[in-house]
Amino acid sequence: MRFVIGCDVGSQSVKAILLSERGEIIAEANADYPIDYPQPTWAQQEARDWERATKEAIARVVHESGVSKEAVLAIGLDAQVDGFVAVDSAGRPLHPAIIWMDRRAVAQTEKVKEAFSEKEIFDLSGLNLDPYHVAPKIRWLAEEHPTSFEQARYFLMPGSYIAYCLSGAVGIDYSNASSMLLMDIRQRVWSSKLCEIFQIPPDRLPPIYPANQVLGTLRRELAEEMGLSPKTLIVLGCGDEHAACLGAGVIRPGMVCDITGTAEPVCAVAEKPLFDESGLVETHCHAHPDYWLLENPGFVSGGNYRWFRDQFGKAEIDLARTQQVEAYALLDRLAEEVPPGSEGLILLPCLMGSVTPTWSAATRGVFLGFSLTHTRAHFARAVLEGSAYGLRDIVDRMKEIGLTIQEIRAVGGGARSPLWRQIKADVSGLPVALPQTVETTALGAAILALNGAGLTQTLDEACDLCVKVIETRYPQAQNAAVYNQRYQTYRAAYFALLPVFEEAAKHA
Amino acid sequence: MRFVIGCDVGSQSVKAILLSERGEIIAEANADYPIDYPQPTWAQQEARDWERATKEAIARVVHESGVSKEAVLAIGLDAQVDGFVAVDSAGRPLHPAIIWMDRRAVAQTEKVKEAFSEKEIFDLSGLNLDPYHVAPKIRWLAEEHPTSFEQARYFLMPGSYIAYCLSGAVGIDYSNASSMLLMDIRQRVWSSKLCEIFQIPPDRLPPIYPANQVLGTLRRELAEEMGLSPKTLIVLGCGDEHAACLGAGVIRPGMVCDITGTAEPVCAVAEKPLFDESGLVETHCHAHPDYWLLENPGFVSGGNYRWFRDQFGKAEIDLARTQQVEAYALLDRLAEEVPPGSEGLILLPCLMGSVTPTWSAATRGVFLGFSLTHTRAHFARAVLEGSAYGLRDIVDRMKEIGLTIQEIRAVGGGARSPLWRQIKADVSGLPVALPQTVETTALGAAILALNGAGLTQTLDEACDLCVKVIETRYPQAQNAAVYNQRYQTYRAAYFALLPVFEEAAKHA
Repeated sequence: MRFVIGCDVGSQSVKAILLSERGEIIAEANADYPIDYPQPTWAQQEARDWERATKEAIARVVHESGVSKEAVLAIGLDAQVDGFVAVDSAGRPLHPAIIWMDRRAVAQTEKVKEAFSEKEIFDLSGLNLDPYHVAPKIRWLAEEHPTSFEQARYFLMPGSYIAYCLSGAVGIDYSNASSMLLMDIRQRVWSSKLCEIFQIPPDRLPPIYPANQVLGTLRRELAEEMGLSPKTLIVLGCGDEHAACLGAGVIRPGMVCDITGTAEPVCAVAEKPLFDESGLVETHCHAHPDYWLLENPGFVSGGNYRWFRDQFGKAEIDLARTQQVEAYALLDRLAEEVPPGSEGLILLPCLMGSVTPTWSAATRGVFLGFSLTHTRAHFARAVLEGSAYGLRDIVDRMKEIGLTIQEIRAVGGGARSPLWRQIKADVSGLPVALPQTVETTALGAAILALNGAGLTQTLDEACDLCVKVIETRYPQAQNAAVYNQRYQTYRAAYFALLPVFEEAAKHA
Repeated sequence: MRFVIGCDVGSQSVKAILLSERGEIIAEANADYPIDYPQPTWAQQEARDWERATKEAIARVVHESGVSKEAVLAIGLDAQVDGFVAVDSAGRPLHPAIIWMDRRAVAQTEKVKEAFSEKEIFDLSGLNLDPYHVAPKIRWLAEEHPTSFEQARYFLMPGSYIAYCLSGAVGIDYSNASSMLLMDIRQRVWSSKLCEIFQIPPDRLPPIYPANQVLGTLRRELAEEMGLSPKTLIVLGCGDEHAACLGAGVIRPGMVCDITGTAEPVCAVAEKPLFDESGLVETHCHAHPDYWLLENPGFVSGGNYRWFRDQFGKAEIDLARTQQVEAYALLDRLAEEVPPGSEGLILLPCLMGSVTPTWSAATRGVFLGFSLTHTRAHFARAVLEGSAYGLRDIVDRMKEIGLTIQEIRAVGGGARSPLWRQIKADVSGLPVALPQTVETTALGAAILALNGAGLTQTLDEACDLCVKVIETRYPQAQNAAVYNQRYQTYRAAYFALLPVFEEAAKHA
């Protein structure tokens, strides 16, 4: 039996899985690192921590599974996006890495907004001009730490940094590159215009390859340290949401990947680069080299349910301890006591601002429509329904710009809830399918390794081998009317309150 | 020592108190009755139940206190307003009494709205043309049960019915009469114009007297049954909110009575009949014959806190049982952990529709402005603050139409919370004073009896004897800015969502 490793470099830890050539997950291991918040809105990590944790997690998954080093053919990667670290010509990090949740580059973004057309930037890149993206963050480094900027040989996203550490070679895949605000999304090459706008020399950016590209082999000194063969192939890999789509089997037009973690990114496969002029969904490259990926970066979703559990679900937390059941499952039972539509109660899931129905940093959470007869159960259900309204915003918009959508694949921890999947099917009017595992990110990286190592002819074949749908929830006709009505109210309330929140934010 | 009885005929029970001539409450007793809801929006009671419970509560308070029957000089009354029963010439009820919370008279109200000017009706009566008031309810009887209407000798509000039962005489005081939508609020006489509009013959309405008027003596057969002397004077009395104001000592211009029960009516003393054209506050007669009373009928307030306790305060309910403390006090402690303004979280206290900032049956409760860092404690505090924003709406409007306000008197169960009183002081910018008892309604009735029986020269003297302020909370300057800001957001959110709720109500 031969194996590959999928390695997900996440926001707080690396997760490595060992996958058999039959597509079964044999073992997994994790290794953590901290996030440093030196100032409000800043968030950074040491790139060396990613490296250390990657080596540790891979070494552990190999060691604990007991497979022979020769049997492990390849390591595939995926990593958090929207962050970067500058490295010198010896590959040494020149500063703490600025990660995805960091919003320090507001001034740099504003400067570009004043000097250039947002629409032109969007038309070229498929992305909103937002401080989340990497290009403004590199600009921040140029302005605030010009020496580091000048010394930089490469600006590397986390996935590229780790691929470089493991293989000694530099590269970036379409999906990661498409998130930087520097790529021509149609041609899939660095855009000289965008590089000019952000004043970033294109020769400091890695060459662009497909995600299943073999970048090289594992560095000899690391092979020894990690208990692997130096012949182990390093497969470039992709962004984490892109990997989650692969691991969910979302590799054909008509499919949507709904990833319910703390946030809920929603991605759809597109055969060509479609554009949402309203900016609700951005246009990325898919990890599958044949496709593009329309993506909303994710409103807070599972995070709301966790918050609700922690603040208002003490009874369920206590009961869960004694009953060997998840508190979430108990909250679901509570929510099920309430009819669809929560008798008028609606959550606007904007607890950390919104990325749907519009992007706004000013909005906050809203429960509206309760009376003295509404119970805690209604609030629990409203939390689940609020996310489904956000999901509907996004799939409706995707349809409006030309996608035909046939199915939603539900992954991430939140996909474990049958009630939530049913609500999403009812609210969106689309079937919601559940794959055999909901933690699909590292699996996506392993799928790239499987194909990159030549264990399958095509990437599609690798996906089909690894992903099985085990259940599908269909929209229930009898719930459509009430959810349609509630959804209209959700949208009306959002747009009514948006200027109120914007005004309040000025005085916060 | 001589005594009087104050008797409050409430929504769910009669409460009788025995008051000494020194103004001390010696004893109290209660007797209950049910509310019947034969249809949605209907609410009715048997007038005979009021009568039975009144006799029972008075008999018990006399019996249990052990005072001699000759020492009890008078019984003063107050009762729920906005309800009525038609009686025949022998004083027999002709139908179940329609009480204040009943909204069946919508069609009758609409008909009047179409045929007559709302403004003209308001200018005459000081009241909004709303199905809550008695005149449309009498119209409903005329249209739906014409025989009962024709047989009616009198249309009696609850207080008049009980005064009649006890004394055999018919009368109504200024305050009750002013709530019927049939009185000329300036002249304090039945308005022939309003009686014409509602087609109610004025000779079927009781004669109007001051609230401290002695209507007669206790019927001989009742005196025996209740253990009282037949010489006991029956003092006409007033409406329940009006009595609460008397019992709070709110009898001088510049004073506001804030009555925090399930709902929170807010009343202010006026030297002349002032009018709020916007309809937020209505113009009543005060129980004190020298004054008028500006009144908002009361948004749900203590009811929200009870709801929050029952739905989200199980920990406090459990702890309260073991610690011999009120769950509300524990929730207050929780709320105190959070800074003023609840870090942006706001409650619109419209759980059963709103009567502030505007009257609307369509609105519902809203929590807005929370993030993942907001806790249950923030929500508890926001419930208290939401009521204070409603209070500020009302006192601000009262100032706008010409009142000078110096002090708020806090009464009702909610007044027991020092935190809530402080929040109200901070939000309104006014001192909030607490009398020695917060249950002031039956006390107000007893004060009328005290003065009616001649135990004090004036009504003011009776109030001063019975009401002592024991604590005053003053606005804290350091909280003004944050509350002002939050209050602006509260109002902006309300007016933004009002059309959303109105639209949603069409489809509910």
